[in-house]
Parts: sequence; C-alpha cells; structure tokens
Amino acid sequence: MRIGQGFDAHRFADERDPRPLMLATLAWSGNGIEGDSDGDVVVHAMIDALLSAAHLGDIGTLFGVGESSQGAGMSGTAMLTRTMEHLHDHRCDPCSIAVCVIGNRPKLGPRRAQAEAQLSAICGCQVSLTATTTDGMGFTGRGEGIAATATALVEVR
Amino acid sequence: MRIGQGFDAHRFADERDPRPLMLATLAWSGNGIEGDSDGDVVVHAMIDALLSAAHLGDIGTLFGVGESSQGAGMSGTAMLTRTMEHLHDHRCDPCSIAVCVIGNRPKLGPRRAQAEAQLSAICGCQVSLTATTTDGMGFTGRGEGIAATATALVEVR
Amino acid sequence: MRIGQGFDAHRFADERDPRPLMLATLAWSGNGIEGDSDGDVVVHAMIDALLSAAHLGDIGTLFGVGESSQGAGMSGTAMLTRTMEHLHDHRCDPCSIAVCVIGNRPKLGPRRAQAEAQLSAICGCQVSLTATTTDGMGFTGRGEGIAATATALVEVR
Ligand SMILES: [Zn+2]
Ligand SMILES: [Zn+2]
Ligand SMILES: [Zn+2]
Repeated sequence: MRIGQGFDAHRFADERDPRPLMLATLAWSGNGIEGDSDGDVVVHAMIDALLSAAHLGDIGTLFGVGESSQGAGMSGTAMLTRTMEHLHDHRCDPCSIAVCVIGNRPKLGPRRAQAEAQLSAICGCQVSLTATTTDGMGFTGRGEGIAATATALVEVR
Repeated sequence: MRIGQGFDAHRFADERDPRPLMLATLAWSGNGIEGDSDGDVVVHAMIDALLSAAHLGDIGTLFGVGESSQGAGMSGTAMLTRTMEHLHDHRCDPCSIAVCVIGNRPKLGPRRAQAEAQLSAICGCQVSLTATTTDGMGFTGRGEGIAATATALVEVR
Repeated sequence: MRIGQGFDAHRFADERDPRPLMLATLAWSGNGIEGDSDGDVVVHAMIDALLSAAHLGDIGTLFGVGESSQGAGMSGTAMLTRTMEHLHDHRCDPCSIAVCVIGNRPKLGPRRAQAEAQLSAICGCQVSLTATTTDGMGFTGRGEGIAATATALVEVR
C-alpha cells in the first residue's frame, strides 16, 4: 500500500471568457479557468496523487509541461483516463482517493454525488470530495482562483 | 482502509472580541476566531477528513452551511463527537488521524500532549498534531488567520 | 499502519545571499532560502509527516525551536537521518512517503529521480516527489518563497 498526494491551483478567467468552469469532470456555471488545459484542479491534483503513489513522477512527466504539453486541449476526463491506463500498465490499482476543493465557488454540495460517481467510475475506487473556503483570506479567499489537494492510496500488484 | 483529508481556515477576530481562541478542543490565550461556530480549525479539518474517508460528504453535509448551520453555537468537541456517532452508524472506524496547524499562534508545543489526548479520546484512535508557520508569508504569515490540514485512515466494517 | 502529514514554507533569500537553494537534500542553482537551517522544505515537511505518523511530536519537539534549535546549522540530510534513528528507536518503520513541492522554482523534473533516490535511501522506503505552481497567485506564485506538503505511512512494530 503506497500513499501519494497532489496539489493544484488555477486562476479564474475573465468574466468575458466563454469557457465553462470545469471541476471534477463536470461543467459548472460562472466564469472558467485560465490556461491551455481545461484547468480542472480536482483532476490535476488527483493525477499527481495517483502518480506519486505509484512512483511514476507527476502530471508533467506524463503529459509534458508548457508549450509541448499533451495536456493542452485534453479534458480532465481524458487525462484521468490516460493516467489510470498508465497506472494499470505499472500494476498499480488505486484503493481510495480524497480531494479537497479550496475556493469560493462553485458550490460543490448539490452536485457532489454526481462528481464523486463520475470520478469513481474512471478510477475504479472510492473518490470522496470535500469543499471549503478560506474565509476571505489569501488568493482563494479573494476569489482570484481555486485550489485542490488530493491524497491517494494505491496497491502495487 | 480508506483515506480522507480536510482543510479549514478561519480569520482571527478583533482583539476587543472577548471569545477565547478554540483550537483542538482547548481554549488558548489571545484573541479568538470570527464566525458563528467556535472556529476550531483543527476539529473542522478533522471532521472533513473523517467524513471524506467514510464517503459521507463533508462538514456542510452533516451540519448544514450558512444561516441554517447546526454547527453555529456548537463546540468543536460536540461537533467531533457527533461526527464519530455518524461514522459508527455507517460502520466506519478511524485508525489514525494527523492534523497540521499552520499559523503564527498559539504555540502548540507546550499543550500538544493534552490536545492529542483529548482528540484521541473522542475519536478512539491515535490523533497527532504538528504545527508550522509560513515564515511571514501569506495570510497565515501575516497573522490574518489560522489554517489546518488533516488526513485520516478509516476502516469500513 | 499510521498516517502522518507535514507542511513547511520558507522565504527565498536575497539574490546577493551566497547560499545555494537546498531542496530534497540536493543543491539547486539560484538564490537560496532565508533562516538558520538550510531551509529544505521537502525534508522539513517529511520530518513532520514521519514524526506525526509515529506520534512523536514534530520537528520542533525533536530539534528545538528558535534560538536554541539544534536544527540550526544542520543539513537536511543530517536532520532526516536523525529523525529516522528516532523513529527506529520507537519501533516505527516508514512504508511510503509522498511530498509535493509548491513553488515557481527550481524545476524539479530533470533531477526528480536523483532526489527521490537520495531520500528513499535515507528513509528506507519509497519517497515520491511531485511539483506544482500556483499560477502566479499567493506567496508561492509571487516567488516570495517555497512550500511543501508531505504525507507518510508508518508501521509500528
Ligand atoms: Zn492544473
Ligand atoms: Zn471551520
Ligand atoms: Zn523549515
């Protein structure tokens, strides 16, 4: 049984930016995230947690970084699915994953079950989501962006 | 064996605010925390870690959020005790919990053992507390508030 | 099996400061970290994670804090080695450790394997490193400093 963890943060895009907010593979109302990928901090933190538990580097190792990133243009669902294939290729199976979303929006509660079901189906194990704010403090509190931390337990066959 | 994690942050109250600082179920000297609950970031992060490991949502699911929150007016001890009942109702037993307090004050060291004993008694397992600062950086470094991260291992019967 | 976690953050030193940046026991190019110790946030977060999993306090308990800290002047390697001796004295063996570095620099990727091998050799178990940024937000995003979070699984004999 190996443990892994990941962290990710992205900046909210301008309100005139038409992209939806992608989080935990779902689209949420309100302005989205800046950047080349869909900016899904839940998925990106999970990928780092899974890869670190499996001792396979991090999201940059698997998808590249910057201009040459294969993650650019890939959805969170596609990136997470690819990550799971990579883990299985290395005889690693996740047992349990927990993700904490830190930010003022979106309100996760009403669609938590849907998001958890989606992520659990992709990963083949229990994925739990919690959400919290930072009481108006820091970059998440000022609404500049959103962050997520993830931990994962992975079994090596 | 399931893993869970939680994060919480609260703003320090004005120095004229008479409430004590509640942390890890203990009262500490110096001005307390803003908000409706007692603002115990250690307990709140633990509750999120326990509920996510048990796949039972988060602190908002169990106690409500905002105006209708049942957590308003409840002590950290009462909230954590209620959370443990909820876990046991769902055949979940915590095995181990770790919490990291991030902030300039209080100095945890001298009362760490007391706080750990109190929390361990409520949860029925080892609870470990660490404390750190952010070297004057960010909202915790500027003394605006205090934060805590928690992880938990939970066994499902 | 016990879980532990740690967090650490340090401020980057002035560019005129001749000290190298120490991270994960390696020296990296670019200005280093302020403070008395070598400021290795990866090692310091790992020590807190290991000690909390072993229920032995935190880095301040083992090395002291402030002026009287024995950590002042000790390298990350020496501190981590001492921590492992302390764990073994208490019949605790780490099984798996994951650390996430949060900051704009250094670029961890090219030397990740070297850093992981070094840390794994000291700890006697798999140590995985991931690295991420905060998209220009917060103290890590502004380049004021660097942070690390760590989790550890420890077995008690
Ligand atoms: Zn990302
Ligand atoms: Zn709270
Ligand atoms: Zn340090």
